[in-house]
Amino acid sequence: MSATDAARGLEAHEPITDEELALAARNHGMPLEGMRYDVTPTGLHYLLIHFDIPAADAETWSIEIGGRVARPLRLSVGDLRARPAVTMPVTMECAGNGRARLEPRPLSQAWLDEAIGTGEWTGTSLAPILEEAGVEADAVEVVFRGADHGVQGEIEQDYERSLSIADATRDEVILAYELNGHPLPPQHGFPVRLLVPGWYGMTSVKWLRSITVVAEPFDGFQMWAYRLRQHEEEEGTPVTRMMPRALMIPPGFPDFFTRKRTVDAGVITLEGRAWSGWGSVTRVEVSVDGGEAWTDAGLAEPQGAHGWRAWTYEWTAEPGAHELLVRATDEAGNVQPSEQPWNEHGFSNNVVQRVPVLVRSSMTD
Amino acid sequence: MSATDAARGLEAHEPITDEELALAARNHGMPLEGMRYDVTPTGLHYLLIHFDIPAADAETWSIEIGGRVARPLRLSVGDLRARPAVTMPVTMECAGNGRARLEPRPLSQAWLDEAIGTGEWTGTSLAPILEEAGVEADAVEVVFRGADHGVQGEIEQDYERSLSIADATRDEVILAYELNGHPLPPQHGFPVRLLVPGWYGMTSVKWLRSITVVAEPFDGFQMWAYRLRQHEEEEGTPVTRMMPRALMIPPGFPDFFTRKRTVDAGVITLEGRAWSGWGSVTRVEVSVDGGEAWTDAGLAEPQGAHGWRAWTYEWTAEPGAHELLVRATDEAGNVQPSEQPWNEHGFSNNVVQRVPVLVRSSMTD
Repeated sequence: MSATDAARGLEAHEPITDEELALAARNHGMPLEGMRYDVTPTGLHYLLIHFDIPAADAETWSIEIGGRVARPLRLSVGDLRARPAVTMPVTMECAGNGRARLEPRPLSQAWLDEAIGTGEWTGTSLAPILEEAGVEADAVEVVFRGADHGVQGEIEQDYERSLSIADATRDEVILAYELNGHPLPPQHGFPVRLLVPGWYGMTSVKWLRSITVVAEPFDGFQMWAYRLRQHEEEEGTPVTRMMPRALMIPPGFPDFFTRKRTVDAGVITLEGRAWSGWGSVTRVEVSVDGGEAWTDAGLAEPQGAHGWRAWTYEWTAEPGAHELLVRATDEAGNVQPSEQPWNEHGFSNNVVQRVPVLVRSSMTD
Repeated sequence: MSATDAARGLEAHEPITDEELALAARNHGMPLEGMRYDVTPTGLHYLLIHFDIPAADAETWSIEIGGRVARPLRLSVGDLRARPAVTMPVTMECAGNGRARLEPRPLSQAWLDEAIGTGEWTGTSLAPILEEAGVEADAVEVVFRGADHGVQGEIEQDYERSLSIADATRDEVILAYELNGHPLPPQHGFPVRLLVPGWYGMTSVKWLRSITVVAEPFDGFQMWAYRLRQHEEEEGTPVTRMMPRALMIPPGFPDFFTRKRTVDAGVITLEGRAWSGWGSVTRVEVSVDGGEAWTDAGLAEPQGAHGWRAWTYEWTAEPGAHELLVRATDEAGNVQPSEQPWNEHGFSNNVVQRVPVLVRSSMTD
């Protein structure tokens, strides 16, 4: 495939381009203080929309289930709502989270740390629907097509992604029609989206129009784009599940423009959330000296099988400049790196967060 | 007052800074296709939060009404809900909308066109509350203080803004506790905010903590900051009501990264919304030739006294490159300018929107 704007790299420290600004003005992350909520309030969850939010009418919307199936189906939103419902908190992260810190910086949505959120999603399991349709013996993948349409990498397309039959029929994979107890907002895929817990967000196709079982691996643009590679010509490896990450609610209060933080001296509780798509987070460590020494944080119970896990750490803040860090380890043994994992499109950058703060003497209060 | 980062100007075409990126990743505009909804779905309305979203508990929240009043009051959210309720659509815009296009560009939230939204707000009128409190004869202004705290212009502050007694007691000024039929989301001021229809958004103080009647004009930082001036040393004039603006839903479909738009040749309906804080929008004109010729668009009924007005324009799109423009005129006679009204902090830039599109022959479909 041809070179894309998104793949064009920049030299170290090159400033943000007008195109990146236009994307940043449309899409948004979750302000990190939003981690105080177990479930992210609607409107704070991160958003990445490749093209435009399509117009949709729930009354007439339907999803075609076809391809290599014995009994093609067409399901309305009402049909989905009539099926057994499941509700679960799911932590989701954009595969490009952290991209803006890479050097050279891949040109795309320039995320810092905030492309995250935990929704309480309601939907119905996909596996029984595929079973009803009767997947043929030669099937290898399921292709999910959204109604969002545009050009990327010089290719006009509807947004499409695929999963293997095994991944598509996992218990937790649902067709979701509610977020936080209400019909999906337009920007999150109204009226129906795919939801694949544990995977980066690009997998959970919004505004779902069709589900097509295929006998060959799907090679659409978005399958090519979301791969880890060092050069455009490399085949690379697919981006799939979320690498572990812990984030901290920046303590104290900010400067409006610089976002630099001031903290009053004394004992304060640092807190945040941690998650991984590869299993439970088993350890969160905090450093309050720029990464020299690390101490275990306290962990709350995991929030369901696919939600984040709260952590806390009591810190005695002494006056002066400090750099706070936090890192997660998951049950598969993955630990967040101190160096950024650079790749051509800037995916899966789970380098540890660094929060510089200035602690002032409580005398100045 | 001292110079601020936000007031530091940049030379023409200087690129976006890291600080502007950090703000753009937290705050967000309304993707312009969101204008298809009469009322902006929760989560799409623009957001500008100066400091952090404060934690709030509706059960224990209260608002102090004090200062130059005969009978100071303390009102809980329950007290406000027990009072007569009003629900109305209100179009709101950030005073800094359009800032990113100015040259030199003032450093702050780098908005393009999208810092807009129309919420359906529910609350109770402020005037009867002030009447109950008994405003003293020497009172001149009412100061509204939010719970959001931080540093701006090197001054540590709670976010505070004032209104004259006359403006604060206008019928349409409410203390709002619901957006779109639900309790305010945290990011829009939960549990209570001021809402001042017709004014730029900085006036509608979120996370409202106190209402203080004062006998001298309030000179807090945010009153100094939101003024139109050519130089930092000038006194300038206050930013108040929204200047007229019409915006178009960009037709066709976008490129992911460049946001360049492709339109299929043929008759298409251009549409969008228009509003003004100085009275009804009385005219919307469209140009399809880069601003040479202008033709009146069709106008729907105004959406209440404070909501935007829908417009449509039928365009026969011929193959080739075109630049589409739209401009509004309000009943006070204000017309959107073709040149940008530059000022030190980048406020009230209501220059006409320009939407470049490439029309392709329908043969290529």
